[in-house]
Amino acid sequence: MQDMIRNTVQKLEENRQSEPMISSQRIMPDKAVIISIIDDLQAIIFPGYFGKITDEYSLGHLVSSVCSRLCCQIDAAAKLRGIDINAEDICRAFVEGLPEVQKTLLLDVEAGYVGDPAAAAPEEVIFCYPGLYAIFVYRIAHELYRLGVPYIPRIMTEYAHSQTGVDIHAGATIGKYFFIDHATGVVIGETTIIGDNVKIYQGVTIGALSTRGGRKLEGAKRHPTIGNGVTIYAGATILGGETVIGDNVTVGGNAFITQSIPAKVK
Amino acid sequence: MQDMIRNTVQKLEENRQSEPMISSQRIMPDKAVIISIIDDLQAIIFPGYFGKITDEYSLGHLVSSVCSRLCCQIDAAAKLRGIDINAEDICRAFVEGLPEVQKTLLLDVEAGYVGDPAAAAPEEVIFCYPGLYAIFVYRIAHELYRLGVPYIPRIMTEYAHSQTGVDIHAGATIGKYFFIDHATGVVIGETTIIGDNVKIYQGVTIGALSTRGGRKLEGAKRHPTIGNGVTIYAGATILGGETVIGDNVTVGGNAFITQSIPAKVK
Amino acid sequence: MQDMIRNTVQKLEENRQSEPMISSQRIMPDKAVIISIIDDLQAIIFPGYFGKITDEYSLGHLVSSVCSRLCCQIDAAAKLRGIDINAEDICRAFVEGLPEVQKTLLLDVEAGYVGDPAAAAPEEVIFCYPGLYAIFVYRIAHELYRLGVPYIPRIMTEYAHSQTGVDIHAGATIGKYFFIDHATGVVIGETTIIGDNVKIYQGVTIGALSTRGGRKLEGAKRHPTIGNGVTIYAGATILGGETVIGDNVTVGGNAFITQSIPAKVK
Amino acid sequence: MQDMIRNTVQKLEENRQSEPMISSQRIMPDKAVIISIIDDLQAIIFPGYFGKITDEYSLGHLVSSVCSRLCCQIDAAAKLRGIDINAEDICRAFVEGLPEVQKTLLLDVEAGYVGDPAAAAPEEVIFCYPGLYAIFVYRIAHELYRLGVPYIPRIMTEYAHSQTGVDIHAGATIGKYFFIDHATGVVIGETTIIGDNVKIYQGVTIGALSTRGGRKLEGAKRHPTIGNGVTIYAGATILGGETVIGDNVTVGGNAFITQSIPAKVK
Amino acid sequence: MQDMIRNTVQKLEENRQSEPMISSQRIMPDKAVIISIIDDLQAIIFPGYFGKITDEYSLGHLVSSVCSRLCCQIDAAAKLRGIDINAEDICRAFVEGLPEVQKTLLLDVEAGYVGDPAAAAPEEVIFCYPGLYAIFVYRIAHELYRLGVPYIPRIMTEYAHSQTGVDIHAGATIGKYFFIDHATGVVIGETTIIGDNVKIYQGVTIGALSTRGGRKLEGAKRHPTIGNGVTIYAGATILGGETVIGDNVTVGGNAFITQSIPAKVK
Amino acid sequence: MQDMIRNTVQKLEENRQSEPMISSQRIMPDKAVIISIIDDLQAIIFPGYFGKITDEYSLGHLVSSVCSRLCCQIDAAAKLRGIDINAEDICRAFVEGLPEVQKTLLLDVEAGYVGDPAAAAPEEVIFCYPGLYAIFVYRIAHELYRLGVPYIPRIMTEYAHSQTGVDIHAGATIGKYFFIDHATGVVIGETTIIGDNVKIYQGVTIGALSTRGGRKLEGAKRHPTIGNGVTIYAGATILGGETVIGDNVTVGGNAFITQSIPAKVK
Repeated sequence: MQDMIRNTVQKLEENRQSEPMISSQRIMPDKAVIISIIDDLQAIIFPGYFGKITDEYSLGHLVSSVCSRLCCQIDAAAKLRGIDINAEDICRAFVEGLPEVQKTLLLDVEAGYVGDPAAAAPEEVIFCYPGLYAIFVYRIAHELYRLGVPYIPRIMTEYAHSQTGVDIHAGATIGKYFFIDHATGVVIGETTIIGDNVKIYQGVTIGALSTRGGRKLEGAKRHPTIGNGVTIYAGATILGGETVIGDNVTVGGNAFITQSIPAKVK
Repeated sequence: MQDMIRNTVQKLEENRQSEPMISSQRIMPDKAVIISIIDDLQAIIFPGYFGKITDEYSLGHLVSSVCSRLCCQIDAAAKLRGIDINAEDICRAFVEGLPEVQKTLLLDVEAGYVGDPAAAAPEEVIFCYPGLYAIFVYRIAHELYRLGVPYIPRIMTEYAHSQTGVDIHAGATIGKYFFIDHATGVVIGETTIIGDNVKIYQGVTIGALSTRGGRKLEGAKRHPTIGNGVTIYAGATILGGETVIGDNVTVGGNAFITQSIPAKVK
Repeated sequence: MQDMIRNTVQKLEENRQSEPMISSQRIMPDKAVIISIIDDLQAIIFPGYFGKITDEYSLGHLVSSVCSRLCCQIDAAAKLRGIDINAEDICRAFVEGLPEVQKTLLLDVEAGYVGDPAAAAPEEVIFCYPGLYAIFVYRIAHELYRLGVPYIPRIMTEYAHSQTGVDIHAGATIGKYFFIDHATGVVIGETTIIGDNVKIYQGVTIGALSTRGGRKLEGAKRHPTIGNGVTIYAGATILGGETVIGDNVTVGGNAFITQSIPAKVK
Repeated sequence: MQDMIRNTVQKLEENRQSEPMISSQRIMPDKAVIISIIDDLQAIIFPGYFGKITDEYSLGHLVSSVCSRLCCQIDAAAKLRGIDINAEDICRAFVEGLPEVQKTLLLDVEAGYVGDPAAAAPEEVIFCYPGLYAIFVYRIAHELYRLGVPYIPRIMTEYAHSQTGVDIHAGATIGKYFFIDHATGVVIGETTIIGDNVKIYQGVTIGALSTRGGRKLEGAKRHPTIGNGVTIYAGATILGGETVIGDNVTVGGNAFITQSIPAKVK
Repeated sequence: MQDMIRNTVQKLEENRQSEPMISSQRIMPDKAVIISIIDDLQAIIFPGYFGKITDEYSLGHLVSSVCSRLCCQIDAAAKLRGIDINAEDICRAFVEGLPEVQKTLLLDVEAGYVGDPAAAAPEEVIFCYPGLYAIFVYRIAHELYRLGVPYIPRIMTEYAHSQTGVDIHAGATIGKYFFIDHATGVVIGETTIIGDNVKIYQGVTIGALSTRGGRKLEGAKRHPTIGNGVTIYAGATILGGETVIGDNVTVGGNAFITQSIPAKVK
Repeated sequence: MQDMIRNTVQKLEENRQSEPMISSQRIMPDKAVIISIIDDLQAIIFPGYFGKITDEYSLGHLVSSVCSRLCCQIDAAAKLRGIDINAEDICRAFVEGLPEVQKTLLLDVEAGYVGDPAAAAPEEVIFCYPGLYAIFVYRIAHELYRLGVPYIPRIMTEYAHSQTGVDIHAGATIGKYFFIDHATGVVIGETTIIGDNVKIYQGVTIGALSTRGGRKLEGAKRHPTIGNGVTIYAGATILGGETVIGDNVTVGGNAFITQSIPAKVK
């Protein structure tokens, strides 16, 4: 047994030395710390629910602690990507934006409660709904994406993805009063634009027509534009960067759409 | 940095004081405790598998411990919702029902094993299948839902949802000998009624036609009725409170159904 | 309360004594240990990323430690299934195969990076993409499946399933340079065969036509064969053991396919 | 084996029912919480050393959190003793006294540093010296003792005792600028009075002459009075409630003293 | 750095191969498990205090669980020592003896409370006094010592030693109604015999005259015999296997005794 | 309550700003990491006992991991003390010395086993004896002390002190074949020199005559010199930098010695 292990370790060591993708030691951002930041931001934004915020001191302490942890992680991520950004400036801008993000999320809660007859109270939406959780993480990650932070937005949305089955790329642009019902199996691509007052259901994809073009498409608008007041039922698939769903349109369940639909007069 | 943090904390504190949804401190049910209750009920119901039950003492100890933890959580949930229920009476009824729930779940295991050629033994169903896990949590949560407990059934089914991608509302009514194959991306709505001996596959939605009506629909039958002996293949969507799928019908993969289908004579 | 608990415990104890499926105490494989093995194999195969491998000593130590933990788990699983296998021989074969598995997975990383315009660098694929994670766990589990290990491959793939929403049966055969984009809601059945250079998207099912035949189908080829260079878009369903998708075919989004499609001349 | 266990459990159950000291279920104060309060008070009083205090928010948060945990524990302790005290008033007085306690402890640090040639810097005294730790815990516990809190002062000093081998009863009265060198094996009894600027060494006992009188002595002054500027060398034993060691006296190592010693003119 | 590490590892490896005391891999008893057994026995013997025992089920469950953990540890210890004992028989005898040990310990509590004017209630003795803790661990360990178990009694008493500074060898014989006040720095040797109703204080040694004779003395009576009703004050040292302290004698503080003292007529 | 907390926090904040000893934020060495280093060194030096070393890989991995953790801690300690040392060079020298330290410790084990008739086997000394543990930690800490590392040697010996009641200053010089029986309440000062083949018992102090001279004595030889083959019985106190105990002398229990004793002809 010892000999076999020695031989195999030697081969793995040779692979490690020769394969460029795994040969160098990287300092990666720390997933556990990033998840702790998400948890604490949830407590900061919905202070009545998670027991951590009881007065101005606990609020200030959590904000200040999130700020310093985030700063470290942004530094690590920038070093890994090889870009030169000012982690402290980014943190400042991110933290300054939190009160606005909070207000936007409270509108999302309202959309979730008003639109779901199964919700017994708004706090059930905040405390139990994976749809709201996915939107909360997206809105946080989107701020960091906008500020040019690499890796971390992705780690955040993939964490929400693994918890909820909802995969919203941090680069997507989503308006106010948004909700996802029975959140599961949802995909929203990087260059998607979604208006205000939109509701979508489980299994909806808002994606690219094809990515066999691969890396040549980097940066191009590959995902649809969704107008205001649109409803998209379960299992619908809407594809393509030039596809525009007009205001107030209702997309039926399991629909497969690759062309634009004009706005509906109310 | 300190000044920015001070300003932002002040704004967040103002939001906290002025927004009713987050301004008051709530005692929420404790998710970690509720998950521990689910874990222990799994050991009580499938005693040969999870190492916690070795004799009558360990069984009695676990039942009694689940009972007292559950009692606390029901109290917290009732206080939060502002309703007046007798947590102890509910616990009593819940615990008294466990032997029946156990028998029902053993039939579900049989359905899972008999119906899946990839299952090597019934214990693989109990120990590994997310479909059975989702059904187990649903059956537990449904008992609490029937007894009028707020929040906790939802927290339980959302936990199963995040673990399995299967979202069965605790209010749904599901008969005996039920199974979900390749459990993922499944949604079963609150007022759904499902008969005995039904099998469904991944990606199936049994949902509402539209909830744009929102809160006005609270309490209405918004989800389909599924007869006995029905099979629903992957990706099928069945919608509407008046939609009835008759006994022994087979619903094809990716089907989109908003109207009733009569029973099939065997 | 005490009397009710005493009565219920007595009934549960009677169920436990009389129901064969739960009456005997089993030594099950340990899920937590199996997850730790998956974690350590991820560090062994992608050594630059998870901080555990810094030199030949740490590599050798981790390989040797995985080997002994795996050996124990295989023993437990074999005893449970009642089969007689040599856990040490299997471990030896498994560990000897690791350098090859590593090379295959590095090709999968390349496929993921080259094919996704949203990926900023190959390391984002390794560190963040649930698609790659699901493939990594599948490739590990498949080796154990090939070597005749019961239960453990299933526990591994179900763990990946719960983390990613991707359910690849460890028995499936999958070629090189494989990738799953927006990995969620994917099902790939036990007897599926997939060629090289295949890319699939979220919500794709490669499954059986019907399993109402149940246990009689055990061992039969029940799932499709997919050729080289095939692309399968989101939500497509391909069913049946005799269904063959020819080389270089593109399967459209939400397609429902139960018959073969001939290869496409490039 | 099962039968023996059943018989033994029955006997233990009979003991439990019949022995008054163990028969009723008590809600005891929670040792782990009390230790966490000690830890946090250490960070509050020596803010530059334990990483928890970085700004006014973290300071305020920790003070407020200690205050609410302490309040709960005092309530539990009072209920257990069967006395009626206002836990909130006591907490208020205790917290208000913290800045004074802090100043006193900083003088103790100075005494420790100035008096020990082996100390390289005052922070070595704060961070490493068990003598200072025992004095810190005593000063905290003494405040609670003065305020009439049952059990908790004892739990605190016994914790310090187990960490350091120094057993200072929370009821003792100790002046400023106090230090214990090589702190281990030290006992200072409940009714001891110690002046300012006293230094003692390992193995010193300041105790009662005899407690064979037992409970009849409750409340009596049973332990010595030590003047200002006294030094007591290793292993010395000073006993008796009427024994007074005068100002500036030096008590030799291993001395055994049961009678008063007059003050020494400097 | 790598080279130095490589050289040093090689030397350490050579030491490991050549030094018989460290060359073979031993399965040692597991200290953490043994500590958990001590904790659970404390809850079994003082059921009203540690929250684990609430009814007959929890009592039975804990007894049965202690029994199986202890059985494993005894097996490991016997294998290590190379002796052939029946772990199950020993466990049986040990568990059957627990109700008697419990009664003896309740007398020790009474001795502690009655004799200490600083104790506010008997439960303070049970919950806070290191003296009682050391006696409790000794009485448990002594039972195992009597039954011929190697290593484990020592591990238990050394654990109590590190927690309290009281080092009672598990082989000592100690009568009823025993107490140690201000427990710290106490040593009681292996062949000591102590009568009923004895009270000792901090810093007391009941030891061997000399052990320079070393291993030749193994098994000999090397430690004193203490009669009934004896009190031994702080810092006293009593040495020698032929030294007998007669009934009702009081040994003064810091006394150094190597010869017998006749009994005192009351 | 809130107002009182606000006032108190303000006062504590003022203290924090104005008291130099607590006003600046220090990066302290990390006690938990230092304890983990002690634990791992114990496994490296006594490889057959703690389960971590099973082959050359695990040995090399642990050595390399201890080395990098130690390097970090030395850096932090040096920065705190404000001195400029090369942490990497020190680590190198420390690690290179480990095989020698190991050999010395194996002689200590032998001394402990041969000299204690209560020890059943040498492994009982390694696995259970606090005396050996205190010597092991001292020998490690002494190497770092010799290499000029600040703080860390002290943190190490104080940890051993809190675990065992034995306080050996890392600066003391101790020869081969050393043992402490019934280790508790022992103090050995910074400038003590102890020869080979010395055995001491509980409660022994080898200390300074007086430290009222305080910081002026820094660096002076303040503690005794003990010759080869000396035995010091329980409770003995030996004081003073000019006190020399000659070879082969036996110091009686509770002796109080401040003057030299000539060597004894064997």
